[in-house]
Amino acid sequence: MHIVITGGAGFIGARLARTLLQRGTLAPAGGTAQPVTRITLVDRAPAPADLAADPHIVAATGDLNAQLADPAAAFWSQADVVFHLAAAVSGECEADFDLGMRSNFAATHALLERLRAAGTTPVVVFSSSLAVFGDSPAQPLPPVIGDDTLPTPQTSYGIQKFIGEQLVADYTRKGFVHGRSVRLMTVSVRPGRPNGAASSFFSGMVREPLAGVRAPCPVPDDTPVALASPARTIEGILRAAEASDADWGARTALNLPSLSTTVGEMAAALGRVAGPEALDLLDRTPDPAIMRIVKTWPGRFETPRARALGLGSDTSFDDVIRDYVRENPDAVKLAIRA
Amino acid sequence: MHIVITGGAGFIGARLARTLLQRGTLAPAGGTAQPVTRITLVDRAPAPADLAADPHIVAATGDLNAQLADPAAAFWSQADVVFHLAAAVSGECEADFDLGMRSNFAATHALLERLRAAGTTPVVVFSSSLAVFGDSPAQPLPPVIGDDTLPTPQTSYGIQKFIGEQLVADYTRKGFVHGRSVRLMTVSVRPGRPNGAASSFFSGMVREPLAGVRAPCPVPDDTPVALASPARTIEGILRAAEASDADWGARTALNLPSLSTTVGEMAAALGRVAGPEALDLLDRTPDPAIMRIVKTWPGRFETPRARALGLGSDTSFDDVIRDYVRENPDAVKLAIRA
Repeated sequence: MHIVITGGAGFIGARLARTLLQRGTLAPAGGTAQPVTRITLVDRAPAPADLAADPHIVAATGDLNAQLADPAAAFWSQADVVFHLAAAVSGECEADFDLGMRSNFAATHALLERLRAAGTTPVVVFSSSLAVFGDSPAQPLPPVIGDDTLPTPQTSYGIQKFIGEQLVADYTRKGFVHGRSVRLMTVSVRPGRPNGAASSFFSGMVREPLAGVRAPCPVPDDTPVALASPARTIEGILRAAEASDADWGARTALNLPSLSTTVGEMAAALGRVAGPEALDLLDRTPDPAIMRIVKTWPGRFETPRARALGLGSDTSFDDVIRDYVRENPDAVKLAIRA
Repeated sequence: MHIVITGGAGFIGARLARTLLQRGTLAPAGGTAQPVTRITLVDRAPAPADLAADPHIVAATGDLNAQLADPAAAFWSQADVVFHLAAAVSGECEADFDLGMRSNFAATHALLERLRAAGTTPVVVFSSSLAVFGDSPAQPLPPVIGDDTLPTPQTSYGIQKFIGEQLVADYTRKGFVHGRSVRLMTVSVRPGRPNGAASSFFSGMVREPLAGVRAPCPVPDDTPVALASPARTIEGILRAAEASDADWGARTALNLPSLSTTVGEMAAALGRVAGPEALDLLDRTPDPAIMRIVKTWPGRFETPRARALGLGSDTSFDDVIRDYVRENPDAVKLAIRA
């Protein structure tokens, strides 16, 4: 089977590709497990070297909207499963409205139209976000977000993701694609470099100190966060691709499970794993632009629908940090405590 | 002040224009009441004769998307208030997906972009619909819809309206327009001719028998409906334009009040007002295509937010029918009972 991953050179996309290569098979929408014969990574950035060297991998490098408009891009009509992960991130979309509308709103619509035109009804997994939920003075979020809580996005990114969910739902209802939307939680710890997401510091505040580098922690200790490790996030995305229609249920997007914690508890876990010298590397200067976005996001979910699909949350941020250390030994300079 | 009404030659648009001309003033978003100096009616259809003859009225006749793309259409940048009522209706959108995406999804986006480019931050009232709510086996609607109930549209029309709400909310949050979305209930009794809306029969089953003409009533007696008279509907649209930001509150769309009734109760009211000969004109042949759409819509709302804005529902469908008879004497052939 042929799989397409938009944003396939990004951290989640590349990790998903590696997981698919390791597994070797995928059972789309409850069907029979089929061998993964080809994975096309669509991204503006080149594919990571390990993936580029794999004979199953094809890198389609370039702007997503351009690739969607390119009649010669045959992989769109050959895809059995499409993971649509590409997006401009929250901070970028807030700073550059047109970028977000082009990269998230227009691209998601163009993707669905391209797949509809192909007439192949692929499984489409759309990565939405907890950012569809937004707290505001005029409309406070409930203390716990449930599967049927009304999203009231307070960022352009959240609005664009929520619109994407609606498009995926209707293109699915019409039989144009076989779509599932999953709302990703804040992913931490991401390896690599900071990005333009307002949530970027949730990884950087762990990753950079572990590497012996100073890092911003621009929000107060009591800031709540609903987070998921990269491993739990990939599990959720794959489950969305493989669940049968009966198990998946409604076309409404699925809230993935999360560990409810706070920035202060995350820092405390970092201190337990890597010692007080790690905490000394945190720069606690507040950043109003990031606080304004992050404070609107919910910190606590109840996810019975995801649990019924067999999905669970991380249970300890200490363990999440230790997983990161084990998976990224070259990026860790501080001594880790047993 | 200059007002633009898209769909301005339609029944609601034309009635809104007449109401504005009678009032003579509008107080946008809680501001000072200002004289209505010009109303531009944007519609594919020509303006009704009474409006076309009024010196305050300008008819901009032609396709909405074309008028939004026309640099010479100066009224967009001169508007103080825009009522965006134009839409392809539910039945049409279900039969012709591309029509709905063009007329509802793309046009609403293009309208907001045009107003953003003008830089004038007009008040924009967007007419959404109860069709954003949809019952399905995988996700049954709650028995009563509240102000914060999660919409799960089961039609393309409902999806497109719900996406329009999200766009209006974010263009408002960004300060590009001053938007408010109102979810209209099933409007009955509409005068005139049947249209492509799945809800068209909710008016036709009263209007046609009163005119001595046979009419379809294609769904079972126990089909619930949340309806509002034309007068209540116009009240809600005007209140959305005039409420202060503080009174309006959240950017989430407002459910307008409705009378909860059933098709059987509506027929009984028709019988009380116009006698059994009216009921003899109803053709009770079921229409599966219409039933499939209508049965997904909710029949009962609680609307505390609308009540707090001073909006109420009709209290009796008998009175709604009598209002129709009084307002449309030339369209009534049967004798009316006192």
